[in-house]
Amino acid sequence: MSISTSLTVRLGIRHPILSAPMDVIAGARLTAAVSAAGGFGILGGGYGDKAWLEQETAKLARGQHPFGIGFITWSLAKRPELLDIALAAKPQAIMLSFGDPRPFAPRIKAAGALLICQVQDEDMARQALDAGADILIAQGSEAGGHGASRTTIDIVPAIVDLAAGRVPVAAAGGIGDGRGLAAMMMLGASGVLLGTRFYASQECDGAEAAKRIICEAKSGSSFRGIIFDLSRNNVWPAPFNGRCLINDHARRWMGREVELLQNVNAVAAEYAAARAAGNFNIAAVIAGEAIGLIHDIPPAAEIVDRIVTEADQILTGRRNSSAATQA
Amino acid sequence: MSISTSLTVRLGIRHPILSAPMDVIAGARLTAAVSAAGGFGILGGGYGDKAWLEQETAKLARGQHPFGIGFITWSLAKRPELLDIALAAKPQAIMLSFGDPRPFAPRIKAAGALLICQVQDEDMARQALDAGADILIAQGSEAGGHGASRTTIDIVPAIVDLAAGRVPVAAAGGIGDGRGLAAMMMLGASGVLLGTRFYASQECDGAEAAKRIICEAKSGSSFRGIIFDLSRNNVWPAPFNGRCLINDHARRWMGREVELLQNVNAVAAEYAAARAAGNFNIAAVIAGEAIGLIHDIPPAAEIVDRIVTEADQILTGRRNSSAATQA
Repeated sequence: MSISTSLTVRLGIRHPILSAPMDVIAGARLTAAVSAAGGFGILGGGYGDKAWLEQETAKLARGQHPFGIGFITWSLAKRPELLDIALAAKPQAIMLSFGDPRPFAPRIKAAGALLICQVQDEDMARQALDAGADILIAQGSEAGGHGASRTTIDIVPAIVDLAAGRVPVAAAGGIGDGRGLAAMMMLGASGVLLGTRFYASQECDGAEAAKRIICEAKSGSSFRGIIFDLSRNNVWPAPFNGRCLINDHARRWMGREVELLQNVNAVAAEYAAARAAGNFNIAAVIAGEAIGLIHDIPPAAEIVDRIVTEADQILTGRRNSSAATQA
Repeated sequence: MSISTSLTVRLGIRHPILSAPMDVIAGARLTAAVSAAGGFGILGGGYGDKAWLEQETAKLARGQHPFGIGFITWSLAKRPELLDIALAAKPQAIMLSFGDPRPFAPRIKAAGALLICQVQDEDMARQALDAGADILIAQGSEAGGHGASRTTIDIVPAIVDLAAGRVPVAAAGGIGDGRGLAAMMMLGASGVLLGTRFYASQECDGAEAAKRIICEAKSGSSFRGIIFDLSRNNVWPAPFNGRCLINDHARRWMGREVELLQNVNAVAAEYAAARAAGNFNIAAVIAGEAIGLIHDIPPAAEIVDRIVTEADQILTGRRNSSAATQA
């Protein structure tokens, strides 16, 4: 059983499920596992670390399945040479998020890779299409990590309508099960990109303690803001901010961002020490609103299988999530 | 053609589409039109105005279709006698939002009406079920007017799982077309409650200028906050705030709520004058994130028909919003 869409056809995969390029924790292990399961794994190139990128792409280049490599666009612009390392690994696609993709598009296309652009509003989508994007990811504010303010059920149909069938659109933000995949397909998306759900997988390189916190976190216990970016001296360009779980550090500084900035050196030192020690009362667990749907840490292949099975049952009417019938 | 769910069965209606009890602007005309079209119209009792309620319920009591009457629960608690006026009109259901429904549930049940409770988190849903709610509305932050912070794709499956089939759950917030209805059914909802879409209908008693502004507003041009409540000296209990379109007044005071409060008498006078004059550069157009999907002001019956037709086509696979196929 598989769910075939314009996205699966474009990427040459079986299931319309992409794993998000979570900075550093989406390593070769998770990427390869998602791709081997019939989805599309995307390596978390993030801000870009040359040694890490060489190490992880070397592992992927030996594999048999298509995969992608993701970057934070405004950060890649400071180290454009990292794109050459990425392209040398022969990824099926490069995914760019948060910034103007146009300076990188020609090299990506020339290397024969597809360009996936994650967007948070219509202007970004137009810019991505101008750049020649082959696939758009419409990311809602429910997503973990960096993003913007428009919610998933608002931004997905808006980008689907704007794309008008020219390129497949995948939905991101708050999706963690087969119901979410089925719902996004009703909105016109051709697939989904999941971060938090794959964070709590065996192959994710995140801290085990963080994975357990995600499993235990209740719906509604995440927030979007700039406290954690300020606390690590990592100021992002507008309109982007980040979603993570509410912890002691967040409770301490919420609504006091200016005061945090006034004491940023002391806070940053404390924060860096907590990150190094794996103290998640202070360090952020970067996760999205799908946390309420996540209660275990299975292999990535099991996550793909569960989501596809559930979505297929709902979409084909063999399982009615709503006890709905058409008459 | 109709879409039958546990919600339509419970309410004795043809289509799982409820119109939101928008304070005063959802009068008898809109309520009756939605119900006559096979949906379920809910009169906007809001804060409660005795003369208005008597006048509008008198019109509805002569009709042939089931209808509901909605109240703001914390406001009704100050004028509980209004519930008697409402129940005397023999509504099929009373809808309570924003506050503890338990003090009112016995009278509603004794009168033979169903109790619909709108909730924004799991604790409110448990309280509603304790009160004997027959139907839950899971309202996401995308909704226009008052609400809370959890988004629709987060809160809907959470409340569906909590209800566990005991009562139907309808979804509210950001839904404006058949794709939205179909998507919510995939998440396990048995129907939808729409406000903004019915605001821009011929039968809504809102200002024509406001309806035109909704038609012209672009996705993403609404915000959730307390500026408009402060500006009309109408302080709501936590955790509730309100979503409306961003206008000059909002841009003037965003991030300056404390300063607004320090000048509240002058601002409130200016604001009241603008409301009276229909000046929507200052007065709020209370609308939700579905604005991007709304471009016309048709009769309510046409809205119901369009949504049901589109959802049915998508749900039965006769129209693939995503070009998806199962193989």
